[in-house]
Amino acid sequence: MKKFKVGLLGMGNVGTGAYKTLEMNRELIASRVGADIDITKILELDVKRKRDVNVSPDQFTQNPDDILTDPEIDIVIELLGGIEPATGFMLKAMENGKHVVTANKAAIAADFDKLVGTAEKRRVMFRFEGSVGGGIPILNALTKPLLANEYTEVLGILNGTTNYILTQMAENGSPYAQALSDAQAKGFAEADPTADVEGHDVANKLSILISLVFGARVHPNDIPTEGITKISMADIEAAAKAGSKIKLIAAAKRENGALEYSVKPTLIPFSHPLAGVSNEFNAIFVKGNAVGELMFYGRGAGPLPTGSAVIGDVIEIVRALRGDGR
Amino acid sequence: MKKFKVGLLGMGNVGTGAYKTLEMNRELIASRVGADIDITKILELDVKRKRDVNVSPDQFTQNPDDILTDPEIDIVIELLGGIEPATGFMLKAMENGKHVVTANKAAIAADFDKLVGTAEKRRVMFRFEGSVGGGIPILNALTKPLLANEYTEVLGILNGTTNYILTQMAENGSPYAQALSDAQAKGFAEADPTADVEGHDVANKLSILISLVFGARVHPNDIPTEGITKISMADIEAAAKAGSKIKLIAAAKRENGALEYSVKPTLIPFSHPLAGVSNEFNAIFVKGNAVGELMFYGRGAGPLPTGSAVIGDVIEIVRALRGDGR
Repeated sequence: MKKFKVGLLGMGNVGTGAYKTLEMNRELIASRVGADIDITKILELDVKRKRDVNVSPDQFTQNPDDILTDPEIDIVIELLGGIEPATGFMLKAMENGKHVVTANKAAIAADFDKLVGTAEKRRVMFRFEGSVGGGIPILNALTKPLLANEYTEVLGILNGTTNYILTQMAENGSPYAQALSDAQAKGFAEADPTADVEGHDVANKLSILISLVFGARVHPNDIPTEGITKISMADIEAAAKAGSKIKLIAAAKRENGALEYSVKPTLIPFSHPLAGVSNEFNAIFVKGNAVGELMFYGRGAGPLPTGSAVIGDVIEIVRALRGDGR
Repeated sequence: MKKFKVGLLGMGNVGTGAYKTLEMNRELIASRVGADIDITKILELDVKRKRDVNVSPDQFTQNPDDILTDPEIDIVIELLGGIEPATGFMLKAMENGKHVVTANKAAIAADFDKLVGTAEKRRVMFRFEGSVGGGIPILNALTKPLLANEYTEVLGILNGTTNYILTQMAENGSPYAQALSDAQAKGFAEADPTADVEGHDVANKLSILISLVFGARVHPNDIPTEGITKISMADIEAAAKAGSKIKLIAAAKRENGALEYSVKPTLIPFSHPLAGVSNEFNAIFVKGNAVGELMFYGRGAGPLPTGSAVIGDVIEIVRALRGDGR
């Protein structure tokens, strides 16, 4: 059976989730794509960390070129996070003819044109389903089966940490600080939660959505962004009395030719499908001029849901390489 | 610009919706796929019916072979409904090297192996996104971006007519007969609603989902199927008191190796995302061993939503023919 070799940059939580997804479904995936997919090399400093996967010490390297320039590697998965060195590594992999998969929203949002442009120039595939909505296959939907539509609006709950906090405040009456430390204890929030609670993580994701939905480049720094740190229990209670929930909503729409976008806490009526999206779940709502309203709902983060998206991208690449993308 | 010629079998409501979708987004679609897509010939007896599209009398034919054997036609869209002559026409189109798109759930559910097998043998593409969930791109999601998952369960609200009736009974206290005639007046139910209210339409869709999700063939006649005709206002009220809604649920899951499936009215707790799916909307819930729970929500029927799915399939075929399916 034909073998495809994959190099993995970064084996933190998400990298381990991607590895685990491939490991637990190896035979099923091989039967579906008609090829073996192996993660043969891993760039990672922390070799000793306990991970719940079968990985041998000689798969690890601390030299990125062992992956980026290895002629045997077909596909590079980048899961380092942050803009550099991640973008530089992805560009180098593309320059060396490798297809690239990432879930790194910060790098894509900052360097979209460079990454997409280099992939086109080098005629390699560049996929990043896991960067928005975790395991929800929203980018695939927007860029493939919905292409018969003119999009008019996209909005959603794109961050599990803040949605968990807002849900706990509304449903259990936990004040902000307590809900945040609860989220940290459950692993839904990082020790430094700034990027999540201030809305920067969501702005990165909205920037990516705007690129795909409206074909316009808006740098995340140029998106008016307000987080949830100023939401009080009084705000939550007032919303409930008015028949609404407060959700951190990323939204973009085109109206009379002008593109409007923002990230901010927003009142969502109980009757709207987004009101039922609780805790760490995410949902993306899109409007097209033929299909009308669609909503995609699922786990917006976590090692295995993001692993599903990352390995799904690898599978799509392998199927296209085998001429089986139909 | 390269031109792709499409033949359309049937220009009823859905056929008109597909034509309209292509017409209203023609330039956008051409810019996205780098090719012109034209519906050049239409098999239809009713030439005089008033349709809100630009179609000229000489596009119509009453001879199926004018489409099925025309060497200039690249893709055939079948929207006649019913099993025959639809299946026979699709097979003949494939035998003549044409790619086929349909939204005809009855024909696919009855003749899945024959249609898929002939497409494989003749090396043509066969796509049917519009057959389940109308405009919701669920079949694409299950067969492409989610392939890294082992699926454990799929369930959903797959029929807009019955969901509209159940919603009206629960929210407005309209008894079944009144809700049905209301649905008929609004165009959500046909004059003979049997296939919808008895669950046969849903059984066809579940049969298709089972084929794609579990790789097993279950003929719709072999799916235990119960419709909504016996649901009384007392049932609806008892459900509400117990914190639930009654929904017509199609479900299939694999447990300890055994596949279980059914179509029947089911109690859904208010807290479940499917409880918020009202009126003519559909939603499909799927569980994978990596991604966890996902839900896809949107308009499950109607000329333009189904048109979005049908023309989306045509676009995917054209992109694959152009080597641009990546």
